[in-house]
Amino acid sequence: MNYKIDNLQYCKWSRDVFQINREAQLDAVHVTVVYHEDYDEFLERIKEWDTHFEENSDLIFLGKDFKDIEKAKKEKKTAIFFGFQNCSPIEDDIGLIEKVHEKGCRFMQLTYNNQSLLATGCYEKNDSGVTNFGKEAIKEMNKLGVVIDMSHSAEKSTLDAIEISQKPIAITHANPNFWYKALRNKSNDLLKALASSKGMLGLSLYAHHLKDSTNCRLESFCEMAARTVEIMGVDNVGIGSDLCLFQPDSVVEWMRNGTWTKSKNYGEGSKNRPGFPKQPEWFIDARGFKNLETGLKNIGFNNEDVNKILGNNWYNFYKGIN
Amino acid sequence: MNYKIDNLQYCKWSRDVFQINREAQLDAVHVTVVYHEDYDEFLERIKEWDTHFEENSDLIFLGKDFKDIEKAKKEKKTAIFFGFQNCSPIEDDIGLIEKVHEKGCRFMQLTYNNQSLLATGCYEKNDSGVTNFGKEAIKEMNKLGVVIDMSHSAEKSTLDAIEISQKPIAITHANPNFWYKALRNKSNDLLKALASSKGMLGLSLYAHHLKDSTNCRLESFCEMAARTVEIMGVDNVGIGSDLCLFQPDSVVEWMRNGTWTKSKNYGEGSKNRPGFPKQPEWFIDARGFKNLETGLKNIGFNNEDVNKILGNNWYNFYKGIN
Repeated sequence: MNYKIDNLQYCKWSRDVFQINREAQLDAVHVTVVYHEDYDEFLERIKEWDTHFEENSDLIFLGKDFKDIEKAKKEKKTAIFFGFQNCSPIEDDIGLIEKVHEKGCRFMQLTYNNQSLLATGCYEKNDSGVTNFGKEAIKEMNKLGVVIDMSHSAEKSTLDAIEISQKPIAITHANPNFWYKALRNKSNDLLKALASSKGMLGLSLYAHHLKDSTNCRLESFCEMAARTVEIMGVDNVGIGSDLCLFQPDSVVEWMRNGTWTKSKNYGEGSKNRPGFPKQPEWFIDARGFKNLETGLKNIGFNNEDVNKILGNNWYNFYKGIN
Repeated sequence: MNYKIDNLQYCKWSRDVFQINREAQLDAVHVTVVYHEDYDEFLERIKEWDTHFEENSDLIFLGKDFKDIEKAKKEKKTAIFFGFQNCSPIEDDIGLIEKVHEKGCRFMQLTYNNQSLLATGCYEKNDSGVTNFGKEAIKEMNKLGVVIDMSHSAEKSTLDAIEISQKPIAITHANPNFWYKALRNKSNDLLKALASSKGMLGLSLYAHHLKDSTNCRLESFCEMAARTVEIMGVDNVGIGSDLCLFQPDSVVEWMRNGTWTKSKNYGEGSKNRPGFPKQPEWFIDARGFKNLETGLKNIGFNNEDVNKILGNNWYNFYKGIN
């Protein structure tokens, strides 16, 4: 059985998006539920998701573990797995990890771009690694089955997390920086360490992570995938598209600035290009998985490996979460 | 005019404590209002203080600036200045700095012992310095008149704060580590940088910061004060006793563990000595200021310098807060 999984989307959720994901035949999507929300605000987001599940029960349901990916395949639906792009919902309270897990959280980034209570983000000048609280949090996440996601973290923090965690960790959405030097992309050393601990990299389709941005060619992306597989092995690479479908630019401004600054921070963007970047035309939305399939085959991947990259690897990774 | 100021106490507040402080002729005390409390919990602590002010208006009132120290002297009362030992009440929201300032906050530590969103605490393994949010917070604290207190912070973070802050910062309660090597005590280099930026050090009387702990001799403490003055100059040294009068041991356990760990952390204590340490007999409470006066004179300080150390330096520092 082959599964199709997009292991990171942060769309403006609506029936339209869920339908597009079904047209793309996605069996599972890891969705970002929160960035900077605290625990109470997280509960509000969950209520919104309750409504989505109720109103779109023919298309989606809440995924709890890998069996729900199988169920989704069978029922021609998409299993939705909750994740956080920052650790804000657990505030300064280790007890809240259990609470968010109960509500469905299966992935949590230890940091967004800045320093958190747990580790250092990739936009900080210095990286002190996983903190005292971070070590305790990782222990608890391992115990409960919440994946440590280091997509937006700095390098030493990520290497620390790989070492400290008793279970494989994930970088759900980023690319290698040998291909495109963005602060958010990752070094070969880090990718090797990730792979040798059986961790997963989800390749990102977000223009700021792509060589030539919106104009990135499908061939270039697939060549990069092939070189990444040379570094990490074919079992540790998947897709985490970072699709932000239908989001207004005010959202990316909030993602970057949260409530931590009175100045304006442009993150991966710039003053002249502050909004969401356009997607490359071969990956406007998840239906671009079809193009990825073609592109990966054209670059020389066999069917089995294409299926691994487009979902089976993530499916196997989910088997180890609990 | 000479003023007596204890620039750090965290007692179990009651009329008894306020009376003792009056017997000690303290014109001002910087009191710790919160450690790990978030904004809402901070408001609860403020309500408790409203009651204290109401019930003990013959002894204390809320101090807002240096003029309230003068007023206290005139009225034979103690002006109470609010401070935080962690930045928890501002959560991840720079806008809350203005709110806590409105409620009276005049000192805020950027960190307690662990990493915070603003900087690194002295109990972390690595110190990445003041963070992106930390830089923004310092700007805001400077603007509003909230003193940056680095008593529990790591060295690089403290040096960063000295450099970034447009106003002098404070280490309200710590000792030099040339005298006693505790994680909380400070290096000569740091003390020099602090003094050359017109920052203040409040010498601590908390046993874990003292050479020979509870058995520390008054002479030894005063010799240390004399050597510290050689390093920092006589205008930059005061007292921040760190008195925790009448606090039960459960409080020190909470101070160290907050809600960040499921293991037990002993901080400056140890498994065999987990509670509050006993005060040295010459400084059981603030009435020990009398002994300090004698001790400092005996070690060779003249009257003017003794008065500086016991309060006038802090008074002058308060003049520059706003």
